[in-house]
Amino acid sequence: MNRRENTKNRIIAISARLMHLKGFNNTGIQEILEKADTPKGSFYHYFKSKDALGLEVIEYYTDTIASIFERYLKDTTVPPLQRLDNLITFYAQHFRKKNYMLGCPIGNFSLETSDLNESFREKLNHSINTIVELIELCLKEAKDIGTISADIDTKQTAEFIFQGFEGALLRMKVVKSDRPILVFKDIIMKLLK
Amino acid sequence: MNRRENTKNRIIAISARLMHLKGFNNTGIQEILEKADTPKGSFYHYFKSKDALGLEVIEYYTDTIASIFERYLKDTTVPPLQRLDNLITFYAQHFRKKNYMLGCPIGNFSLETSDLNESFREKLNHSINTIVELIELCLKEAKDIGTISADIDTKQTAEFIFQGFEGALLRMKVVKSDRPILVFKDIIMKLLK
Repeated sequence: MNRRENTKNRIIAISARLMHLKGFNNTGIQEILEKADTPKGSFYHYFKSKDALGLEVIEYYTDTIASIFERYLKDTTVPPLQRLDNLITFYAQHFRKKNYMLGCPIGNFSLETSDLNESFREKLNHSINTIVELIELCLKEAKDIGTISADIDTKQTAEFIFQGFEGALLRMKVVKSDRPILVFKDIIMKLLK
Repeated sequence: MNRRENTKNRIIAISARLMHLKGFNNTGIQEILEKADTPKGSFYHYFKSKDALGLEVIEYYTDTIASIFERYLKDTTVPPLQRLDNLITFYAQHFRKKNYMLGCPIGNFSLETSDLNESFREKLNHSINTIVELIELCLKEAKDIGTISADIDTKQTAEFIFQGFEGALLRMKVVKSDRPILVFKDIIMKLLK
């Protein structure tokens, strides 16, 4: 990675952290510039606008989340449904360590921006489809080896799992315990078995 | 209702609409005063602070949602699971008419405020429990008449349904179609049958 890419990626990573913490609208460019130790001119060299940065931040979140999902859901050392169980268990532990704060950056960004910004909405939709496809691939494997019923619509079920997970993370922020994630995991596992 | 209560309730209803549209933080007291045609002194007579108003707005949302849930889930002219089906179908139509905008005010408020304001978090938790209990009551009726299995943990399942519904509404804002709600309904109904 050259120096230009380094600066650009540093701005994206810092913005992603700030926006996860405070939301997109409440994160100001001035604060990003200070935290990234970057002059304003340099920022506008890399990003046409705050919206252009926002789109890159959504991609950054998607890559981060997809790599966690892939690490678990493509782990061929364990059977497909166990991978899903491991993934959800990982997230329960992850959020326990974070005192059940913040929740899912894609869910938060969706709630905050998708009614107001069509390019964000399209990007978020694409991002969610990427994650749903990873879940679907895992369910297909489970179906192929006969762990789950041949009747199960893997696409629909993957969407249901994604949505249920987002809902669990949302409720977790209010309950401040891992019960919402564990309730979710327990019923999803029963549903699939 | 006397004149005092009228003014107070009008401020709450107007604030509820504005906060659903723009979020709690982005709704200013000045805008509320203008829309409610109320002087500042009068506002502070009824509400100690914007946070005090926020707590009343959460109660207002809870009452509104609980009355819709009750209308469907306590409709003894249809069997319990059909009531749940009717409720979800009502919401699919409701959001279609609203172009899939805004989503659930309790979900939005939770995401925006529960990490930052402990009194809001407690109020939202109580609010969610009120809704979950209405779902649980309906599931208990279904269990009593043998429509759903005696093994089903009605509390856990009601929590799962609430969370899944919130997740469906969140995704709906991104997809801008009723597919997330219909996917949710379809799998929940299969799960319960």
